[in-house]
Amino acid sequence: MKIIIAPILALVCAFFLATVAAADGGKQNDLWNIGARTIPAPTGASLKLRNAIMSAPAPNVATARQNVPKNEAEWTAFIAEMDEIYTSEDSALAKQLSVSVKRDEINGVNVHHLMPAVVDPRHENHLFIHLHGGAYVVGGGDASLGESILIADRAKISVLSIDYRMPPKHPFPAAVDDVVAVYKHLLRIRPAKSMALGGTSAGGGLSLASVHRFIQLGLEVPGALYAGTPWADLTKTGDSQFTNEGIDRVLVTYDGILHGAARLYAGGHALKDPLISPVYGRFEGFPPVYLVTGTRDLFLSDTARTHRKLRSAGIIADLNVYEGMSHAGYSILPTTLESLQVYTELNTFLIEHLQ
Amino acid sequence: MKIIIAPILALVCAFFLATVAAADGGKQNDLWNIGARTIPAPTGASLKLRNAIMSAPAPNVATARQNVPKNEAEWTAFIAEMDEIYTSEDSALAKQLSVSVKRDEINGVNVHHLMPAVVDPRHENHLFIHLHGGAYVVGGGDASLGESILIADRAKISVLSIDYRMPPKHPFPAAVDDVVAVYKHLLRIRPAKSMALGGTSAGGGLSLASVHRFIQLGLEVPGALYAGTPWADLTKTGDSQFTNEGIDRVLVTYDGILHGAARLYAGGHALKDPLISPVYGRFEGFPPVYLVTGTRDLFLSDTARTHRKLRSAGIIADLNVYEGMSHAGYSILPTTLESLQVYTELNTFLIEHLQ
Repeated sequence: MKIIIAPILALVCAFFLATVAAADGGKQNDLWNIGARTIPAPTGASLKLRNAIMSAPAPNVATARQNVPKNEAEWTAFIAEMDEIYTSEDSALAKQLSVSVKRDEINGVNVHHLMPAVVDPRHENHLFIHLHGGAYVVGGGDASLGESILIADRAKISVLSIDYRMPPKHPFPAAVDDVVAVYKHLLRIRPAKSMALGGTSAGGGLSLASVHRFIQLGLEVPGALYAGTPWADLTKTGDSQFTNEGIDRVLVTYDGILHGAARLYAGGHALKDPLISPVYGRFEGFPPVYLVTGTRDLFLSDTARTHRKLRSAGIIADLNVYEGMSHAGYSILPTTLESLQVYTELNTFLIEHLQ
Repeated sequence: MKIIIAPILALVCAFFLATVAAADGGKQNDLWNIGARTIPAPTGASLKLRNAIMSAPAPNVATARQNVPKNEAEWTAFIAEMDEIYTSEDSALAKQLSVSVKRDEINGVNVHHLMPAVVDPRHENHLFIHLHGGAYVVGGGDASLGESILIADRAKISVLSIDYRMPPKHPFPAAVDDVVAVYKHLLRIRPAKSMALGGTSAGGGLSLASVHRFIQLGLEVPGALYAGTPWADLTKTGDSQFTNEGIDRVLVTYDGILHGAARLYAGGHALKDPLISPVYGRFEGFPPVYLVTGTRDLFLSDTARTHRKLRSAGIIADLNVYEGMSHAGYSILPTTLESLQVYTELNTFLIEHLQ
């Protein structure tokens, strides 16, 4: 069937009068130059999301590329500064939503138990194991609870948030080891299929990587997985890491903090290790997975590629793409219509798949 | 909960050191200037898709914007030229794949019956009603069969391709009327739930619009719908129509052929009429819908927004986004791994939902 490709391609190009396909096929265009452009706020997004986009400055790629900590001391200072802001936000959010938070330790790993004011009877025997985001460097400790609180409140489900160890002190595989240690304990006291595992960004990537590890270890996998715009590939391979540079107002570019954090997290291990970049793993045996991203997300490709790998392995996987949304917008802007939809549908997915 | 939005947004922006959120919130950025960039071929796509991208010239937005027919005579000449190429390709494809094609007329509408060499026993009583693409202007008559042939061959299902009337002679609502006329005939001779309806691009949009019309008329809807990167919004509202301009190598830009074809098709009717731009309709009562798009697709947003509307209406809707793929790449490059996956999964969806 090879014979038909070139002419069909040529006719489509001709159809739109944009180009004439190279008949000899000899020219290789490894890099495309995309010209400067002007883009409006996404009219199809909710009013709140659109207003948030318009009331903040446009992303600045050059600045975002430069402002990266250069050594351990700078990383530590950067992390402390960020975590202080997160902590005060999380604390306010927990109070506002009447979610109670209790610290604990399981198998030597720090965790938080979160309980909503009322538990949905359908979730009476369920547990959501949450892994926070923060590019594997920030958002630990008291700064780790933002999305855990939202999930506890929106789904009316009991949440266990794992405060996994992070670099610079504890690079890979510390985080995966911590998730495994807690999960092994939980498996002894409750059915695997009564538990969901998930999180956003690094939390989504770590959730996928942890399930790869569970399968390696012969552990029964949880009943459902939530991969919110997962950092599934730390190698800067995803197409959207290029096409959405400067369009994603949250991550802005891969060539700053993310690039630095990836190396810091890997700690000398290969970035393509499926326990670091889970998209490179085999997905046979995975539980059903709920995935969320946005058209402006730098991790649109990480999410879509993970979805494809799951589906090719025959796994139930539900991909949802939100109009005009940058990375993790549903979690960052919790009062938007998009945020309400994400957690409502995630909850429906949990109710369908948890036992 | 409004109180928490601004600080959370500020901290995220601060986290990535890209921007400092405007504390006063007063400044409105309706338009962002996105700088020029260089993008590589998508490493995560299949080798064949990547090679196709690299062996053709990069999209040229300026050229694509200029080359638009200016009057009915120019449109007619353009359509004839394109259809001649399509026709010879379709004829070669039908022979190669052993799909038999027979012309017919149903209720005064031209159709083609397509039969694969062997029908899958699971599809013995099923019919796929296919609507071709071509921006509502080209791809009619003998030039309309490309994707119909692929579906007949890949799903081993009987296909009825509706050669709906098009502008400049027959603007909206001729195309919708033709689909309704054929569908009414089919409803008299077979169960609605034994039929699927669908197509790519304009064919996907027209499929969605037709179901809006079926519901208006009180007709029973088909058992399943296929919306391949549907042209669901003719008003240039989708975010990706801006963000993927010059990145989608097939459509390239909205501001050329598409803009002209939208007006020609609407023929003076409001572009936001749900029978023209189906994303603006109500989706209650729709059958299950299978949707496909790509990260580089100018219609990524049309597809994702339609998916969201369907899900919000409680409809089963399955969104699939292919890495690095431009508009309709799975249909244009039928030997790629992506194309095989699309039609294999579409077939699984049909088997699950048709009765």
